[in-house]
Amino acid sequence: VRAAADRIVVCSGFTQALALLAGVLAARGGRTLAVEAYGHQHHRDVVASRGLAVRPVPVDRGGAVIAELGDASGVLLTPAHQFPLGVPLAALRRTQAVAWAAAAGATIIEDDYDGEFRYDRQAIGAMQALAPDSVVYAGTASKTLAPGLRLAWLVLPADLVEDVTAAKVLADRQTSSLDQLTFAELIRSGGYDRHVRRGRQAYRRRRERLVTALRQHAPGVALSGVAAGLHAVLDLPAGQQEADVIARAAARGLAIGGLGGYATPGARHAPALVVGFGTPPAHAVTTAIARLCAVLADEVGRVPVSD
Amino acid sequence: VRAAADRIVVCSGFTQALALLAGVLAARGGRTLAVEAYGHQHHRDVVASRGLAVRPVPVDRGGAVIAELGDASGVLLTPAHQFPLGVPLAALRRTQAVAWAAAAGATIIEDDYDGEFRYDRQAIGAMQALAPDSVVYAGTASKTLAPGLRLAWLVLPADLVEDVTAAKVLADRQTSSLDQLTFAELIRSGGYDRHVRRGRQAYRRRRERLVTALRQHAPGVALSGVAAGLHAVLDLPAGQQEADVIARAAARGLAIGGLGGYATPGARHAPALVVGFGTPPAHAVTTAIARLCAVLADEVGRVPVSD
Repeated sequence: VRAAADRIVVCSGFTQALALLAGVLAARGGRTLAVEAYGHQHHRDVVASRGLAVRPVPVDRGGAVIAELGDASGVLLTPAHQFPLGVPLAALRRTQAVAWAAAAGATIIEDDYDGEFRYDRQAIGAMQALAPDSVVYAGTASKTLAPGLRLAWLVLPADLVEDVTAAKVLADRQTSSLDQLTFAELIRSGGYDRHVRRGRQAYRRRRERLVTALRQHAPGVALSGVAAGLHAVLDLPAGQQEADVIARAAARGLAIGGLGGYATPGARHAPALVVGFGTPPAHAVTTAIARLCAVLADEVGRVPVSD
Repeated sequence: VRAAADRIVVCSGFTQALALLAGVLAARGGRTLAVEAYGHQHHRDVVASRGLAVRPVPVDRGGAVIAELGDASGVLLTPAHQFPLGVPLAALRRTQAVAWAAAAGATIIEDDYDGEFRYDRQAIGAMQALAPDSVVYAGTASKTLAPGLRLAWLVLPADLVEDVTAAKVLADRQTSSLDQLTFAELIRSGGYDRHVRRGRQAYRRRRERLVTALRQHAPGVALSGVAAGLHAVLDLPAGQQEADVIARAAARGLAIGGLGGYATPGARHAPALVVGFGTPPAHAVTTAIARLCAVLADEVGRVPVSD
C-alpha cells in the first residue's frame, strides 16, 4: 500500500489533470467517461480530445444520478458542490457510486473544485476516503489563489500512479518547480490556510449580501446552490428566457451566465442564471449586486433599485 | 499574414511544445515524424505517444541527412548545434530541408535548444527565417534559466496557429501566468540579455578549460562539438568501450554519458562520450575536469593527473 504522499501527482491545473486521466483510461481500453449533464463544456472537450466518449449523467436534487452510469469506464463528479447546480452529492449516492465503481472496475474522478469554500454546514468529507482504490481526488489552487497559477493535484489509486506519472512526463515533464516550491512554502508557513480562511469569510459576506439583496429586491427569484462555492443559481420566473436576462445584464455591464451555457446539448431545465460572486473586486461588489437586482426586478415587473 | 507575435504559443517546456505539435500533425493525417538518429530518447517517446511513427534520420558532419527524409510528415531538427553530435546543419542542407518541406507539404520543427550559447563564430540564423510557412521555431528558457521553469515558445507557421492553440487549451489551458509575466519582465528589463551574456562567458571559460586540460592530459582523445552549447563529444581511442569509461568515471564521482545513450536503437557509431560542462557548480569545475582527464588518461595508458 502506498502512502498518500506517494500517490500525489501535481498537474498544471485541473485541465491537465483531467486530460492525463482521460488519456490513461483510454489507453487502458476505456471507451466512455460519464460526466454530469451540467458542467463546463471545456471539461467535456478535454475528455473527448483524449479519445473517450462523453456520456451525460442527469443531475437532480441529490446530485448526479448514479443509477445512470451504466457501463461507463469512469465518471467525473463534483460531489462537494455540483457545478453549476450547487447541490452536494447525497450520502446514498456516494455509496452507490463507490459500489458501482468497485463492481465495474471503473474510476471515479472527484473534482473537489471549490471544496475549500463551504459556509452553511460541516465540511463534507471527500469521496476518495470511501474508496481510495476507485476514486481519484482532484484539488486545485485555481479558486483559492488564482487560475493563472495552473496548480492542481491528484491523489490517485495506487494502480494509476505509474501510468499517470508516465503520461505527465510525456506531456510536459513536470509542473513549474518555482510555482510548486513557492506553493509548498506557502502551505508550510500556514499562510495558505490563513488565506483560505480569510477568503471563505470574504466570500461568505458577499454571498450574504447577495442573498439579502435578492430577497428584498427580487423576491420572485428562487436562489439555490449557495451552501458553498462562489456562485449561485437563480431560477427565473416562468416565462422569462435566460438569453433575455443575460442580455439585459450585459447592457448594465454585468457578465452573467445562463444554466443553458453549462448544459450538455439536449439537457432540459427551467430557465436559470448562474451568478458568480467571486470575480468582482471588493469595491465593485455593491454596485454589481445592485445592478443584478435591478435587472431581475425589471424582469419580474417591480420597480428597479438604483445603481 | 500574421505578425510574428501573433504566431507565438508559449508552452510548458519543449516537451509540451513537441507533444502539441506531434498531436496536431497526427490529427491532420500525419503518420511519421523524422527525428535525428542521435538525440533524446524522451523526444522520440513524446512523438510516439501522440500517434506518430518515429523515423530515424542519419546525422553526419553536415548534420541531418536531408535526402533521407522521404515521405515523412515532418522532421525534428537541431540545426544550430546538433544534439549530441554538436555539428551545425550545413547551409546546403538547410535549403534542401526547406525545399523538401515545401514540396512535401511537411513541417520542420527547429529545436533551437541552445542557440544562445555560441562561442566560435557568428550566430547562425534560425532556419525559420528561410521558410516561415514550413518551419516551426522552438525556443526554451531551460538552458538559459532553468529546466524546472518549464518555459518554452513556438513561433508557428500561420497555418498551425489555430490548431496548436486549441491543443494547448485542451492540454492545460495556458502556462503559469506568474512565470510568464516574470519572464516577460526579465526580458523587458534587459536582465535576461545580460544574464545570457554572462552565462555565455562563463560557459566559454569552462569550455576552454576543458579543451586545454584534455589536450594536455588526454591528447589521444579527439574532442568535437564545442563551437556552441554546453557539452562536448569525446571520441574514444580505438578499442575503448563507452560503458567501461562511463563506469570508471562514475567510480570517480562523474556522471558522464555515452553517445550510445542518445542513439536510436540500431544506429552505429564509433565509441564516444558526451560530456556536459554546464551542470557542475562553479567551485566544482576544476575538480570535475581533473577527474575526467584522469579517467581518460587511464584509458589511453598515460599517467593520471592528480585530483
